[in-house]
Amino acid sequence: MRARVHITLKSGVLDPQGEAIRHALGALGFDGVERVRQGKVIELELADADPEAARARVREMCEKLLANTVIENYQIEIL
Amino acid sequence: MRARVHITLKSGVLDPQGEAIRHALGALGFDGVERVRQGKVIELELADADPEAARARVREMCEKLLANTVIENYQIEIL
Amino acid sequence: MRARVHITLKSGVLDPQGEAIRHALGALGFDGVERVRQGKVIELELADADPEAARARVREMCEKLLANTVIENYQIEIL
Amino acid sequence: MRARVHITLKSGVLDPQGEAIRHALGALGFDGVERVRQGKVIELELADADPEAARARVREMCEKLLANTVIENYQIEIL
Repeated sequence: MRARVHITLKSGVLDPQGEAIRHALGALGFDGVERVRQGKVIELELADADPEAARARVREMCEKLLANTVIENYQIEIL
Repeated sequence: MRARVHITLKSGVLDPQGEAIRHALGALGFDGVERVRQGKVIELELADADPEAARARVREMCEKLLANTVIENYQIEIL
Repeated sequence: MRARVHITLKSGVLDPQGEAIRHALGALGFDGVERVRQGKVIELELADADPEAARARVREMCEKLLANTVIENYQIEIL
Repeated sequence: MRARVHITLKSGVLDPQGEAIRHALGALGFDGVERVRQGKVIELELADADPEAARARVREMCEKLLANTVIENYQIEIL
């Protein structure tokens, strides 16, 4: 089973890398790019057979290791 | 319109951050994590009204700025 | 002239990537690794001739773009 | 003992994040920024007492986990 976790900065947290990309796109002539946010994506291959058990385990991985929940949100997809 | 771009290392390219996460999960007692890959996700808010035009523009952004296509793959979702 | 900027999370801010590395090193048999922090390093080649002017400009770049000063510290070296 | 490891892309490897920063700095009015490269910095607190032993161990950590030596260089400082 595969799981994908998106980890993004919470909306109030300044994102310098996203801002750098937004300015760079403008400088390269890409108009109308209103906002850019950069995050991480972590893809896991798991031995679990049960999607709900896998999701619960991945949630625990996020809380314990993968995300800094003070400044980051995470979102889990089981594929 | 929002677009989301996943940028991941090509499958043959070693991913030290993914490996570090895999070992760390094992050390924390999460069994059965067979493979971990870490990538980037870039979310863009675009003024485009046409999804196909937006996708073509984002593809151009990836080729020109966002990805290193020698070592990275990208995948575009229009939301 | 070259400048190097270190951007690191402030000491109170949890660093999941550093933690993942610490656990992974332990799992690989590297004992006695007490703490790991991961940050970014940005190297700039600048046309400036005057080191003090370069440093002041790089400081402004950090405040305006490179760092999120709420959660990150930066440190500038002129090489 | 503290060690600091700089991990940077080899000079022939395209660096999209560095390029994004360079363009963004130009768009913000910072002239004369000729080249930007972004890398990682990993700071380790080690129980080792001997600097040479510490350096050798950190080199092994780089080879085994921290760097992808096909595309990245690393540089170790013992502080």
